[in-house]
Amino acid sequence: MNVSSRSPERSLERLVHVPLGDRAYDILIGPGLISRAGGEITSRLKGRKAAIVTDEHVDPLYLEALMDSLQTDGIEAVSLTLPAGEKTKSLEHLATVTDMVLSARIERNDCVIALGGGVIGDLAGFAAGIVRRGVRFVQIPTTLLAQVDSSVGGKTGINTHHGKNLLGVFHQPSLVLADTAALDSLSEREFRAGYAEVAKYGLIDKPDFFVWLEKHWREVFEGGPERIEAIAVSCQAKADVVVEDERETGRRALLNLGHTFGHALEAATEYDSKRLVHGEGVAIGMVLAHQFSARLNLASPDDAGRVEAHLKAVGLPTSMSDIPGKLPPTEKLLEAIAQDKKVQGGKLTFILTHGIGQSFIANDVPSSEVLSFLEEKRPK
Amino acid sequence: MNVSSRSPERSLERLVHVPLGDRAYDILIGPGLISRAGGEITSRLKGRKAAIVTDEHVDPLYLEALMDSLQTDGIEAVSLTLPAGEKTKSLEHLATVTDMVLSARIERNDCVIALGGGVIGDLAGFAAGIVRRGVRFVQIPTTLLAQVDSSVGGKTGINTHHGKNLLGVFHQPSLVLADTAALDSLSEREFRAGYAEVAKYGLIDKPDFFVWLEKHWREVFEGGPERIEAIAVSCQAKADVVVEDERETGRRALLNLGHTFGHALEAATEYDSKRLVHGEGVAIGMVLAHQFSARLNLASPDDAGRVEAHLKAVGLPTSMSDIPGKLPPTEKLLEAIAQDKKVQGGKLTFILTHGIGQSFIANDVPSSEVLSFLEEKRPK
Repeated sequence: MNVSSRSPERSLERLVHVPLGDRAYDILIGPGLISRAGGEITSRLKGRKAAIVTDEHVDPLYLEALMDSLQTDGIEAVSLTLPAGEKTKSLEHLATVTDMVLSARIERNDCVIALGGGVIGDLAGFAAGIVRRGVRFVQIPTTLLAQVDSSVGGKTGINTHHGKNLLGVFHQPSLVLADTAALDSLSEREFRAGYAEVAKYGLIDKPDFFVWLEKHWREVFEGGPERIEAIAVSCQAKADVVVEDERETGRRALLNLGHTFGHALEAATEYDSKRLVHGEGVAIGMVLAHQFSARLNLASPDDAGRVEAHLKAVGLPTSMSDIPGKLPPTEKLLEAIAQDKKVQGGKLTFILTHGIGQSFIANDVPSSEVLSFLEEKRPK
Repeated sequence: MNVSSRSPERSLERLVHVPLGDRAYDILIGPGLISRAGGEITSRLKGRKAAIVTDEHVDPLYLEALMDSLQTDGIEAVSLTLPAGEKTKSLEHLATVTDMVLSARIERNDCVIALGGGVIGDLAGFAAGIVRRGVRFVQIPTTLLAQVDSSVGGKTGINTHHGKNLLGVFHQPSLVLADTAALDSLSEREFRAGYAEVAKYGLIDKPDFFVWLEKHWREVFEGGPERIEAIAVSCQAKADVVVEDERETGRRALLNLGHTFGHALEAATEYDSKRLVHGEGVAIGMVLAHQFSARLNLASPDDAGRVEAHLKAVGLPTSMSDIPGKLPPTEKLLEAIAQDKKVQGGKLTFILTHGIGQSFIANDVPSSEVLSFLEEKRPK
């Protein structure tokens, strides 16, 4: 592609390369990528067949544009539209997807395309990982959360009655197309929830990025170059961690900053999205992680205050009292935390911090400390 | 373990190491390994929990000895006994196994143990590969076929109505314990079927091993040091190929010598084990591959004669006329071959040979040649 022939739209486009050896791939970030998907895929993948998985919310918005683009570039595509929502991450739907992919005679070099948010990406990625012991997989994430988090890194999975994401594989995509224009169709609340994960990358180890977000978050919400920039920085940050620790045996755990408290709150609200969605749980969880670190004299309370102020400014909940409805007793919250993470001799693993952009993995947090901290922080 | 303290039994034991980086593992080969499993596992794996999957044939023979050994070495184990046979490789049984593994709270460093033949290994390995995106997996193969072939190399899978092994993952075991004494409980026919895969390694690229087998096959069948030697050489041969090409993008396809014709015959007999089992199909397939290579002037007909004579000597079927019952028309056989392998412009991929121990991958075999060859070879 000659640079001078690029549309103004394309000149904004960013590319993040994930150098994972023979599993290396590109993440493209910019507006209009869905209607250019065919060309991006044919220039990178050998196969000329695709099986698209999407959901009933995304189908009417973007499926036709995607199918048209694939057809234009000579890719034979079929599609499957599933119900929207977390319940779709089930063994039953996995069987439906693998059956459709096998019926379409997708071979190893053909691809499964996930068009949608994290649920569709996790499910379709799992199917792509097990059909013929792995076929190509293309992520076209349509939510901010999926663009900056779940579509990058190769974690796939479904839920069982034992818990969330307990069955799955590591299966890296061959290409990620993050169409930033697709985010315009998100509700304000959904965009904000995804933004919590963007802020997370600053808080983990990019203090300058957090400062930049404090200054530019309005432009990120409004769209334009700052939004693309924020997503590109987030994808790069996630890619860096994934390259260092693809299968989460160490450093990748840092990506769970805010997630231990967050998951416990999601469980405590019974995954009722009217009360709390994942990103909101992470927002409260990140504030709690900074407050807890301050309480343990690991970080200054001022940093916790800054995190709280920023997330509050963008409209995210920042404390347990922001969650509508009653929370279960503190002991129940701790139980949810202990179930999420392995407890060894009364010690819990948490992502704590020495300050903004200075998070670390702590393997020896006494559960008694967590209990008294939560007791203090919960709504009276 | 002090060498001088070893029992005479243990002095026969062989070890094959599979150097796959962070997925490296040992294959131990020798008599009595089932009742020493606990010690071998605890000396290599961190976890102290195990979920055993076995079938109703193997359970009464070896499950108690395995459970005792695990208990002695402090491993908390549960077990699940499934119906024997190929039908067990289904999505339904996969769900049963993953549910049992999750109920047992098996974590990443704990293990799933497959105690049985290829069906149990493929199913349990798949489950181990997807629970928590991969937990440890120990293979304790109890058939010759599983010891020399399916338990090594990390291929796992189940069947769907679209075909065999169409869903699965590559998930290397952390340890393989090939208890050669367990083979004493096999029927003569089952042992012979496994022996076809042993002979295959000689035919692929180990002419000296084939000569050795021609001389020592009786001792291999009778048991003792030669049996252990033959299994060790086979495991080493398979390990060498797997290390070079873990995900079958090239050289690993050589392991399919005899399998393209073999699979077609298995399909033609509707996987009716009364008529043909996998190893028997491979035996006939290997003879056909050598005869077909001779017909294409790639190898001497004398080599095909030697292969046929040896497999006949051990009691294996060597021609289509050895299969009881009627075979479908030749066109149907070719169809089965074309379905098994990708056909590109009327060309088929076959493993052919320049002679004993000189096999190679041929990507451009005209299907018309295959058709006329099969027409000539089929029973009149």
